[in-house]
Parts: sequence; structure tokens; C-alpha cells
Amino acid sequence: MIIVLKKTATPQELEYICQKVRELGLTPQVSRGIERTVIGVIGDEEKLQVQPLEAFPGVEHVMAILKPYKLASRDYRAENTEFDMEHGVKVGGKRIVVMAGPCSVENYDMLLDLAKSVKKAGATFLRGGAFKPRTSPYSFQGLGEDGLKYLRQAADETGMLVCTEVMDTRQVDLVCKYADMLQIGARNMQNFDLLKECGISKKPVLLKRGLSATVKDLLMSAEYLLSKGNFKVMLCERGIRTFETATRNTLDLNAIPVIKKETHLPVLVDPSHGTGYRDFVAPMAMAGIAAGCDGLMVEVHQCPEEAKSDGEQSLLPKQFDELMKKSRAIAQAIGRDI
Amino acid sequence: MIIVLKKTATPQELEYICQKVRELGLTPQVSRGIERTVIGVIGDEEKLQVQPLEAFPGVEHVMAILKPYKLASRDYRAENTEFDMEHGVKVGGKRIVVMAGPCSVENYDMLLDLAKSVKKAGATFLRGGAFKPRTSPYSFQGLGEDGLKYLRQAADETGMLVCTEVMDTRQVDLVCKYADMLQIGARNMQNFDLLKECGISKKPVLLKRGLSATVKDLLMSAEYLLSKGNFKVMLCERGIRTFETATRNTLDLNAIPVIKKETHLPVLVDPSHGTGYRDFVAPMAMAGIAAGCDGLMVEVHQCPEEAKSDGEQSLLPKQFDELMKKSRAIAQAIGRDI
Amino acid sequence: MIIVLKKTATPQELEYICQKVRELGLTPQVSRGIERTVIGVIGDEEKLQVQPLEAFPGVEHVMAILKPYKLASRDYRAENTEFDMEHGVKVGGKRIVVMAGPCSVENYDMLLDLAKSVKKAGATFLRGGAFKPRTSPYSFQGLGEDGLKYLRQAADETGMLVCTEVMDTRQVDLVCKYADMLQIGARNMQNFDLLKECGISKKPVLLKRGLSATVKDLLMSAEYLLSKGNFKVMLCERGIRTFETATRNTLDLNAIPVIKKETHLPVLVDPSHGTGYRDFVAPMAMAGIAAGCDGLMVEVHQCPEEAKSDGEQSLLPKQFDELMKKSRAIAQAIGRDI
Amino acid sequence: MIIVLKKTATPQELEYICQKVRELGLTPQVSRGIERTVIGVIGDEEKLQVQPLEAFPGVEHVMAILKPYKLASRDYRAENTEFDMEHGVKVGGKRIVVMAGPCSVENYDMLLDLAKSVKKAGATFLRGGAFKPRTSPYSFQGLGEDGLKYLRQAADETGMLVCTEVMDTRQVDLVCKYADMLQIGARNMQNFDLLKECGISKKPVLLKRGLSATVKDLLMSAEYLLSKGNFKVMLCERGIRTFETATRNTLDLNAIPVIKKETHLPVLVDPSHGTGYRDFVAPMAMAGIAAGCDGLMVEVHQCPEEAKSDGEQSLLPKQFDELMKKSRAIAQAIGRDI
Repeated sequence: MIIVLKKTATPQELEYICQKVRELGLTPQVSRGIERTVIGVIGDEEKLQVQPLEAFPGVEHVMAILKPYKLASRDYRAENTEFDMEHGVKVGGKRIVVMAGPCSVENYDMLLDLAKSVKKAGATFLRGGAFKPRTSPYSFQGLGEDGLKYLRQAADETGMLVCTEVMDTRQVDLVCKYADMLQIGARNMQNFDLLKECGISKKPVLLKRGLSATVKDLLMSAEYLLSKGNFKVMLCERGIRTFETATRNTLDLNAIPVIKKETHLPVLVDPSHGTGYRDFVAPMAMAGIAAGCDGLMVEVHQCPEEAKSDGEQSLLPKQFDELMKKSRAIAQAIGRDI
Repeated sequence: MIIVLKKTATPQELEYICQKVRELGLTPQVSRGIERTVIGVIGDEEKLQVQPLEAFPGVEHVMAILKPYKLASRDYRAENTEFDMEHGVKVGGKRIVVMAGPCSVENYDMLLDLAKSVKKAGATFLRGGAFKPRTSPYSFQGLGEDGLKYLRQAADETGMLVCTEVMDTRQVDLVCKYADMLQIGARNMQNFDLLKECGISKKPVLLKRGLSATVKDLLMSAEYLLSKGNFKVMLCERGIRTFETATRNTLDLNAIPVIKKETHLPVLVDPSHGTGYRDFVAPMAMAGIAAGCDGLMVEVHQCPEEAKSDGEQSLLPKQFDELMKKSRAIAQAIGRDI
Repeated sequence: MIIVLKKTATPQELEYICQKVRELGLTPQVSRGIERTVIGVIGDEEKLQVQPLEAFPGVEHVMAILKPYKLASRDYRAENTEFDMEHGVKVGGKRIVVMAGPCSVENYDMLLDLAKSVKKAGATFLRGGAFKPRTSPYSFQGLGEDGLKYLRQAADETGMLVCTEVMDTRQVDLVCKYADMLQIGARNMQNFDLLKECGISKKPVLLKRGLSATVKDLLMSAEYLLSKGNFKVMLCERGIRTFETATRNTLDLNAIPVIKKETHLPVLVDPSHGTGYRDFVAPMAMAGIAAGCDGLMVEVHQCPEEAKSDGEQSLLPKQFDELMKKSRAIAQAIGRDI
Repeated sequence: MIIVLKKTATPQELEYICQKVRELGLTPQVSRGIERTVIGVIGDEEKLQVQPLEAFPGVEHVMAILKPYKLASRDYRAENTEFDMEHGVKVGGKRIVVMAGPCSVENYDMLLDLAKSVKKAGATFLRGGAFKPRTSPYSFQGLGEDGLKYLRQAADETGMLVCTEVMDTRQVDLVCKYADMLQIGARNMQNFDLLKECGISKKPVLLKRGLSATVKDLLMSAEYLLSKGNFKVMLCERGIRTFETATRNTLDLNAIPVIKKETHLPVLVDPSHGTGYRDFVAPMAMAGIAAGCDGLMVEVHQCPEEAKSDGEQSLLPKQFDELMKKSRAIAQAIGRDI
């Protein structure tokens, strides 16, 4: 921690801060520059974070040396996190995992049909919402437990894994009963009670980046999961909110190499929400792979114009099939596979 | 609803869309321009919103005529919403309501002392967090039910009302037991299950705008509350996330006149979170009043440098006192009061 | 300057950096923490800024202690900058200066009529564009020199000052001939050649904040003017670009107290561009005053529906008149005047 | 153009607007919905754009049917724009063009050495700044004409083309003398006088997207060039400004498929400015190719720690070499080449 004093700070103010630092068992190191006096603090930075240093008289600003996340950082674990799931699927490995399915689960037949189709094309996870976070209270809110049952059944019949969203702490047990991976949606990325419960559950988690979350914020939310002992966490870039309105969100692919540098956790790209329009999904899925992601999540629907949600961003099964072929070629060009 | 067709749309595509519109009991009105053909839809726009129109072949884009919120709109209720609370406090009236207190409840004596001080200066609500949404799992998470008890006790002793945050659906009943108004925090603005439970509770709600929420999004979240029959809702502008880093958030005071135009619900300004620094709280509180807000929420602490959270943005009691005096003058200059 | 080394930095890398620091005549001060080694640099920080320190092997990141602007900072000049202009107008003083007029100069009669009206209401500067920066090449581009002449004539006839935009280095001399203050528009805030020429001209300058400029960026652009010896500079907050679409821009009033803290230069608020809609101009003008601004710039037009630009955000003369009355009351409530 | 009336609009207001529409030679088509009355306008939408419709009494808002750009749109020209340059280079074709070189031109020997190296790796354009737009007036401002001479000489010696920035209208002739392509930087994207002069020059132009420019804004700026008869225009995505601070800018690769859909003009990606850190340049360059760009621009420097600007984001020649190899594999995977 570096504490920069105001030009007008008095010796008393300086001494008072140094004393507080010492009381916490840390060592202040005062450095008098030409324009400013600076206090470097040696010791466990975390002890200082409980103290609102910028509230002290004489302080101009405070700069942290270390990142605020611990377990999520490469300092804690240098090598990539990988974890095995059923059906021989490894998350975080050389092979890029692909999740596909409808935005919302609507009925069993459609779902099974889609599952067969995306499985054949290369997907190993079946995605689909049973509980839907909708901006409008008047929109379709999902099938609830019936949706979960359909997902489980369709996945079992096709040898796939289920990834589906959990929106509320009271649903965690229920969703755990049916799903292989819990999805925490963008709007709940800082629903801290939900993070705690998902951490405690020990189920693999797909944690989506919030619309206004920095990568640092995303890793702090992952830290909630890790600190409960759940290290089976995959991050997800799904677009942030910016001033650009040509797309639903701005898919921030810069975040992929940033995440690979900062943390050992694997990261997936969701080009469906990241763009919001069917035409842009395939190029951005491929761009995600080229940028180094460990997974893709794509919305697919047999009849997007009848979809109960997100029809305008869903691929047709044959478009998904074609995307998988091209994606495989891109993956192989950078030494990976799908 | 206006459906703009692609330049290349075929007569078959046009007819197919018109047929779908008719099937929903609506009337399509086709208008052939020089560059584009456009379909205007007459009838209840809501019926069309279940259909992802942009997924239809031949459609370029779709433009809504009406706002997606109903009960929150001035179309539904033209006059301002006002509601009465205990101790003769009216929310949404000519008198601007003031909420003040510490960021987190830390102990009873401090809280009572603060309550007395801010009450005397003009606050009618005591604010303070018992459940705290913290970015880091290692930060102070609040006193929980003890915090609620202290709030209730200090408010009763001083004749104030309690406004405090509820973070999780499982806490709603508990918080309702102690609080006069439930605060839904910025990070939970789109925690839809929480919105539903708070709507059902019928307690007055302070709904904070999310960091990346448009005013429209905020009103859609309010709609969740209203659609459960709870009209005692006050909105809160507390800053949005932008590229500017000189302040913790960008307080969007434009939102005040926008909200006053679009909805009948009252709106409060939180300059503490909206700026993040003590020095900027007073000018922005006064600016909020001049912009037309119906309430202020201000963090106050006797000893900010010892605060367990947000010390750097808390006013000292004497600073709050001074702010109240100036704010009263501003309020009177525009025909209101504090 | 604080240089934070990577956890993996070698002693050779550390020594190499220290040597570079010494070569620049500065003193490196090495501080070995538990997790990271840090180098504090004592001496003139500017010398280091020519060196891209983050490109050095072993460096994790670099943190500046000082602000990059010098002449614009309160460190350089603690008291507020004030400057006198004709007709007894003082910029930066206790009295808030008001600039009003049409977006574009359209013809002389209209302009003179407006000038009389806004002068009477309290404006001392006549604003109006002769050279117009328009998003579309097909939009009205301004009357050019004729517009400048009309401005000068109308101002002289009413005892007002002229503030008008200069868009191109080749126009600086011409605009100086007619104007009392040169406006540098938001889109040109980082047109560095234009900044240099306006600095050299020594004319008072109104420098508008760019749509994506931080306050720091704005002060760096002001530094271009100051470093040419021109200290007659007034800054202008006119809204930044965010995700919110309910208003044309997001007027960042937080910037007012930030600017007052960081620099001695006066600052003006432009609620017309800052909101984009007539209904929101008056509340935000008053909010700007309450936040502590030193000036207002407001678009006024006799017949907004016929305006060649920005009609939707122009006040009618009688609305401006009313705004001035209320603004005066707000100004007096905080010890200032209009 | 669709004009939506307020719920409270009177028949007189409706008739007044219809009359204005007819006066412009257009046909108003009134459609009375349940909640709102809407006027569709048939005819040349451009005629209406001179009229600020939202300023009319009774108007709620106005929605454009057509995009504001004409010559830049796919409506005007359906097929991709391609243009030939010297040395057999085609811009906009199947082969992705690569521009490489230092941020600033510093001296001739270094430049020639770099040119040889990047040419060998696959670059056909030599990039480098002679006039540098710097945030600080105290930073290196470029070598000026000497820099241009060095670029020309090094390019001629290696059989490359020169792309370099022009910052000011007064420099256009000079830069045209030495360069094969004029770069208009992000900060000048809405310097409309500069756009006009570059349009008149008829030189190929690389137009960089501004930090807060939407794709629509970028195309409107391109329209300035096209409307002067210069169709040799390549667009450039180089990152926009968002709340994320882990990277210098947020490279918006969504913009690539959006641009390919909206316009016939080719588009290039600049991952150096788009990320700001050397480690992230290669993954984002490859992502750009996978997203469908027509060109890459990469900063390369023999000794980034000595660079006069942007050292921290420059690749070493051997890193560039490696990037070219991988990029070629990605390009081939999607049926293109480098």
C-alpha cells in the first residue's frame, strides 16, 4: 500500500498515520519527494484494507500494490485450473468446451431434438433457462422445475451435461438436483448471498460477468466462490454495457487475455448475449476462440421466430453446425481443439 | 409497434408477417415508402412483445411506440405519487425527505448518538446497513439482525423512521420486522426474485438504480414492485458507471428531470455513493435538490477514519448540519422545503 | 513515481531499472515487501515520463504520484483564476456569467432580437455558431464570416460579449477578429494543433470537455493553452457519452466540484447539450449553479421548430427569462449572484 | 420518418405537423392507435431532417427509418469496396493487409531496420507517426517533415507503402507528398474540416474510430470523405472508452461484423491501441482476423523501453514475426490469406 500525502500535510498528520500503521503490526516507510511525501507500507496489505485510509486527514490518495483477489490470482496458483466432469468432459483443458441450446426451455420435444442436433455438431453441454431473469414482469418467466426436468432428461438421453441458471438462494438446492453446472447470470454477479450458497454447494459454477463489471470485479465475485472452497469455477465474458447501440452489448474480448493473465480459472465466451443479433454470433464466436477462450456458449433454436425469448440472437441448428466446423479450424490453427 | 422491412424483403415475407400480426388480433397497416416498406401495428402492443419480431425473415428492425412500463408511467397515473409514513413524514410531497446515518451499523451507542445529531439537523429517516453487499468476501459483512435491532431502537428513541437494505429473498420477512422502508441496492436492482418478494411485502421500498441501468431499466424494475400491488416505491439515483475515475461513480442528475417526466414515483438522490468522496457530497446534494429530487440520502459518521465501510465518503455530523442549512435555502429558492 | 515489480522479477532486472533511474538524475528507493518489491523514485517525475517504464522487463505496473498537469493545477496556483473582460464582466468571480443565444447564427434580425431579450434577462455573452461542427456533411454548416459579423454587430448594439466556436487552425485569426472569447468544441478538445493556435492567440478561451474525456484529459488540454502563455481559460462541462439514451448526453455535474478542487480555472455548465431536451435544461442549469459552477451557457431561440440546428434543446426567450429568475435565487442561496 | 405524438396532442397540433410535412413535398400518413397517434412520412426522409421535429408542439419523439449515411451504406453499394495500390497491394480484397512499424518515427536507421524486418514477416505498409497527437504538451510531438522523409525513404528501399497520420488541415498537402495513405486519428474523427480536406485530396484514407464514436458516427465521418468524391477509405477499429481499466481501451470487435453488414468499406483492426499492453496484442490481432477484418495495424519496436511513445504496447520484431505466422493460419482457416 502506498499512501500519498497532500502537499499541505503536517508532520503531525504524517506521524498519526505512521502510528496507525504500526498499531496494525505493519512497517511504515516514509519517502520525502520534492513535491509529495509518500508512505510505503511493508507487511500484510489486507490488514490495512479495513481502515478507510483516504478518510485520514492529510491523505491525498492511496494506491494498492496488490490485487484484492487472492485465491483467484495467478500468485496463488500459477498453472491453469482444469476440472473433470462426466462423459469425459474436461473444463479448462486443451479442448474448448461448447454449450448450446435454447435461451428458455419451452417444451421437452423441442429440447430433445435440439440436444441431439447440437450434440452431433460438437456441443457437450446442453444449456437452457428454466428460471429466467426478465427485464419485464410481464415476460415469460420460465418453466421452473419442469424446465429443469426436461433439461436433465434430454441431457441424459444424449449423453450431455446440463448448465442452467440459478437466480435465487432458495433455488440452489433444487437446481443442484438437476444440473451439472450452475450458471450465475450477469445481473446476479454481485448477488453475494447467491455466490455464497453456490460456493457452499460445491457444484461447478459458470459465473457470468456483469454488464458494468470490470475484470477485477468479476474476479472478486469468483473469490466469493473460491473462499467457500469451490474451485470448480468457469468465468464467462458475455458483453458489457457501453454507449454503442448497434449491438445489444459490447463483447469485450480484451477480457480473455486479461483473464488468462490474471487468474488460473478457465473462461468461456457467450457471443449470443455479447452481440444480440444472429448475424454477428458466428464471427464473434470464432474471434473468442482466436483470443484464447476455453469455452463457447451459443443459443440455438429450431424456429427463432417462435422463441419465447432471445429469438433474434439464436442460431438455427444448421448455422450452429457450420459454426462448429469453422471454429474447429480456428482452434486447430492455434493448437487447440473443439 | 413499427416494423421496418429490409430493402430486399419479398412480398411473401411481408404477407407472412401481416398474417402473424392478424393472428394476434391486431391490425397491420402497410406503408410503402421510397426506400423501405414499413408495417404499423394497431392494437395492444404488448401482444406483439412475446414474438421476437426481429427474428422474422425480411425484418430490418422493430421500433416500439410505447414505453415498456405501464403502472410506473405517467400515462397510467398523471399526478405524483405521495405516501404517508409514521411521525407525519410524507414521501413525494413538497417537503424533501432526508435520510442520514452511517454506511454500516457498527454498534448501538454510536448509532444512537448519530441519530440524535442527524435528527436535529433535519433528517427524518435513519439509514444504516445491517446486511452489507461487499465486493470482497473478506470485508465486513454487517451485523445482521443485531444491526436491525439497533436501528429500530435508535429510531424509536429519536422519533425517526428506518430505511435499511435487504439483500436476499430469505431476509425479507426479517427486515420487514424492523424497518419502515426496504432498500434494494444498486447491485440487486435486477434481482427479480427479490423485487417480487419486496413487492408482495407491501412495505415501502427505496429502489436504487443499478450501476449500468438506464432510467428505463430502473422503471422496469419498479414495475415488478408495482405489479405486485406495492405502489409505495421511491426511486434512487446513486451514480452510474462511466469511464470517469475522478469520482467513484458518475451521479447522473439528468435522471431526475427524466424520472419526473416519465413516472409518478418520487425520486431521491444519494450523493455519498454518487461521488465517493466527502468533499463532493455537499455540492452534489444541493445540485440534486436544484434538479428537483424528492429526497436525499447521506452517509454520516462521527469518526470516518474508523468506519468499517465508506469512511472516505462520510460527512462529519457538523458537516451534515451545515449541508442541511444550505439545502434548506436551495429548496426554498425553488418553492420546496426540507 | 512508484514502480511495482513482478513477483518473478530478478535482481538483475531490479538493478537495471535502478540504473536507468539514476542515469536520469533521480534517486531510486527500493522497498522489499512480502509479496512485491517496489521502487520509489525521488526527484522530478517528469523526467521519467519520457521513458515507457511498463515496457521494462520485470515491471508489473507503474503508478504516478503527481498529476500530469502542472500549470492547470492548484499546486501551481492555489487561488481561483479570474479575468476581466469588456463591459465590466469578470470571469471566475462571485457573479456567475451567463452566455445565451441560438445554436447557429441564422440571420441578423433574429439574432439582434434574441440578443436584446437575453441581455435583458441577465446574459452578458451572446453565443451562436458561425462555423458548425455537424455529424452529417449534408447538414447546415453555418454562415461562416457573415455569421461572425452578425454576432459582433448584435453584441455591440446590446453591450454584450461574443463567444463563438473556432473549428480549424486556419480560422483562428478570422474568429479572433470578431469574437471576445473563442470556443473550442467538445469534438476538438484533443485537436492539439487548434489548442496551440488558440493558446498563441492569447484570446480568452472556452474549452469544452470532450464526450469521452476525463477531467484529467480536459485539464491536459487546458495545459496546452496555458503552456503557450494563455491563462484566460474557462472550462465547460457539457455532458459525456454513457450508455443512457434518455438524454443526448450525461451531464456530469460531479465534474464541477472535482474541477474546483483540482484546478484554479473557472468552469461553466452547458445544460442544453448536456441534456438535449428543452424540458430538462432549466433544472440542470439550476443544478449546475448549486454544484458550484462559474457560468452557464444556454441555447435560446424564438422559434425552435424552425431552428437550423438543436431546435429540440433550445429554450424560448420567456423560458430563459424565467430560468434566470430562479437561477438568481439559487445563486443567492449559496452566496453568489447572477 | 415516424412521428409519435404525445397522448395529449390536440387535433390542431396534428394538423399543423401534417401541413409542414406537405409543404416539404412529402406525404403524411396518420395512423391512430389505441394509445398514441403516429404519423408516417412517405418521401425523401432527408428533407425532414432539416426540420427539428422534436421541437414541434405535441410531438413525443421521432424515429428515423433510414440510416443517416448514404454513400457509405450497403444500400448505395452492395458489393465490397476494393482498391489497388502500388506494389500490387489490394485493400479490401481476400488478402488481409498488414501495417507495421513504430509508434513514432524516431530516426532513419531504426526505421529502415524495422521496415526490413516487418516486410519480411508479411507487412506491406510501413506505419509510423511524424506528427503525433499527444495528451501532454510536454511529450514528444514528432519529427514533422523529417519523419515523413524517413518513412518515404524506408518504404521505397523496402518496397512498402506509407501510412501516416495527418493532424491538421494545414498539413494535408505536405503529408500527401510523402504518404500513400493518410491516417485520420481517433481524436480527429470528428474534425470535420480535416475530413473535408482529406476527402478533396483523393488520397486513400485510413479513418480511425473515435474513443466515444458509435459505428454510426464513424460511418457519418466516412460520409464526409465519400461526399467529396474520395471512395478510397478504410475504416479502423482501435478501441473505445469504457469503464474497464485493465486495458487502455476496449477493442470493440463486435464492430467488425456490424461494419461489414452496414457498409461496403473495408475495415482494419489496431490491437496495439485497442489493448495498450504488449501481452494482449497478439491474441486480439488474431481475434480481429477471425471476426472478419480486412487489415491489421501493429506497433513494432526494436527496443520498446527506449521508445519515445507507446513502448508498453509495442511488439518486438520477433514477436511480430511469430504473430504473422499464427495469423496466417487463422486467416486460412476462414478462407482468407495474409
